[in-house]
Amino acid sequence: MDQTLARLEALGHRLPEAPAPVGSYLNCVRSGKLLHLSGGLPIDGERRVLGKVPSRVSVEEAQEAARMVILNRLAVILAELGSLDRVARIVSLGGFVNSEPGFHDHPKVINGASDLLVEIFGERGRHVRTAVGVAALPLDVAVEISLVVEVAD
Amino acid sequence: MDQTLARLEALGHRLPEAPAPVGSYLNCVRSGKLLHLSGGLPIDGERRVLGKVPSRVSVEEAQEAARMVILNRLAVILAELGSLDRVARIVSLGGFVNSEPGFHDHPKVINGASDLLVEIFGERGRHVRTAVGVAALPLDVAVEISLVVEVAD
Amino acid sequence: MDQTLARLEALGHRLPEAPAPVGSYLNCVRSGKLLHLSGGLPIDGERRVLGKVPSRVSVEEAQEAARMVILNRLAVILAELGSLDRVARIVSLGGFVNSEPGFHDHPKVINGASDLLVEIFGERGRHVRTAVGVAALPLDVAVEISLVVEVAD
Repeated sequence: MDQTLARLEALGHRLPEAPAPVGSYLNCVRSGKLLHLSGGLPIDGERRVLGKVPSRVSVEEAQEAARMVILNRLAVILAELGSLDRVARIVSLGGFVNSEPGFHDHPKVINGASDLLVEIFGERGRHVRTAVGVAALPLDVAVEISLVVEVAD
Repeated sequence: MDQTLARLEALGHRLPEAPAPVGSYLNCVRSGKLLHLSGGLPIDGERRVLGKVPSRVSVEEAQEAARMVILNRLAVILAELGSLDRVARIVSLGGFVNSEPGFHDHPKVINGASDLLVEIFGERGRHVRTAVGVAALPLDVAVEISLVVEVAD
Repeated sequence: MDQTLARLEALGHRLPEAPAPVGSYLNCVRSGKLLHLSGGLPIDGERRVLGKVPSRVSVEEAQEAARMVILNRLAVILAELGSLDRVARIVSLGGFVNSEPGFHDHPKVINGASDLLVEIFGERGRHVRTAVGVAALPLDVAVEISLVVEVAD
């Protein structure tokens, strides 16, 4: 019984399939107690959130894209650990926003990811993060997010 | 008695209040021996260093902004550990410069941070780093800097 | 006898001198089992790959630049550990491409690095990664790549 997954579903979310990497890398690698995840993209089957923020993708759409990334990152973690209950702690999050040079609301965009992690994991979901605006992202996605997670023994 | 803090003050620096995060995240999270710090911004009370380098913020001003970030990151570490003497080692630094596309002196800007760490911590302050120029930063700050620190037992 | 180095050379590659950092930082720092490496640049003696992708540097040239960075990162690891056989695992890779705002093939560029690591290390070379396009890089290099490596006991 995965209590974290049950909570996630009770909150109205669902996990997609863990996505295939878009290059020669792995979705996750464990070293010691830490599970490192590759930068995830807002892709869920046919659905993708593409374009720069805020000219083509609004802040609200970019927040939704950040939530999409978190859900597919959690799908990776679930596939790796067998249960989201084994997440002892979300340690750190790296948030990259496909950003117009004059855009400065990156924290608001990445709050979409951070708030969802806290909603699902409670205190275990609270993390450090770095949010920046980059010139371009793979496939022209609106956001890319990496995670480092501590695994319970 | 915090010898590192005493040294910092003897060098003429002072620590600001540890700043509040500008989003849904924590200033720091410890996992094992490592203390991870969120990307810090050049904010000290009412004082902020805003704008792109070098069009609006000069290299010298950006170096000073990098030093401001380090001092508020050290305030976070002090609040967490109780003493800067408990820093066994600055492990890594991520430096993001709010950069015009034709600017290439990021190392000089981030040296403001790296040199200050070595000045304060001596050999314990020497670290690896990644310095890049990004399209935009939260609040339009000139630099953002993240740290990972090893804590003494 | 360094079997990994022998394999690297049998594949037709050669390690350059470990490059000097271009600022006030170290090439690598070990903490616990992890060796952290600074962001490396495509510099090999007089040879440098400079400019934005794809306007000035083609995708193929940028892939070659990514391979150059990996080879000088491996030179750093060899100098630190004495043998590449002591690399238990490439854990994570951060890839920053000096990118035109409309360029989206960062994964293809960074595959130059990832594929080479797998070619040299086999399964031990498979890693997580984050690939983004940044506004500008130090010295105007085409790519910058950081690594975290797990060291065998």
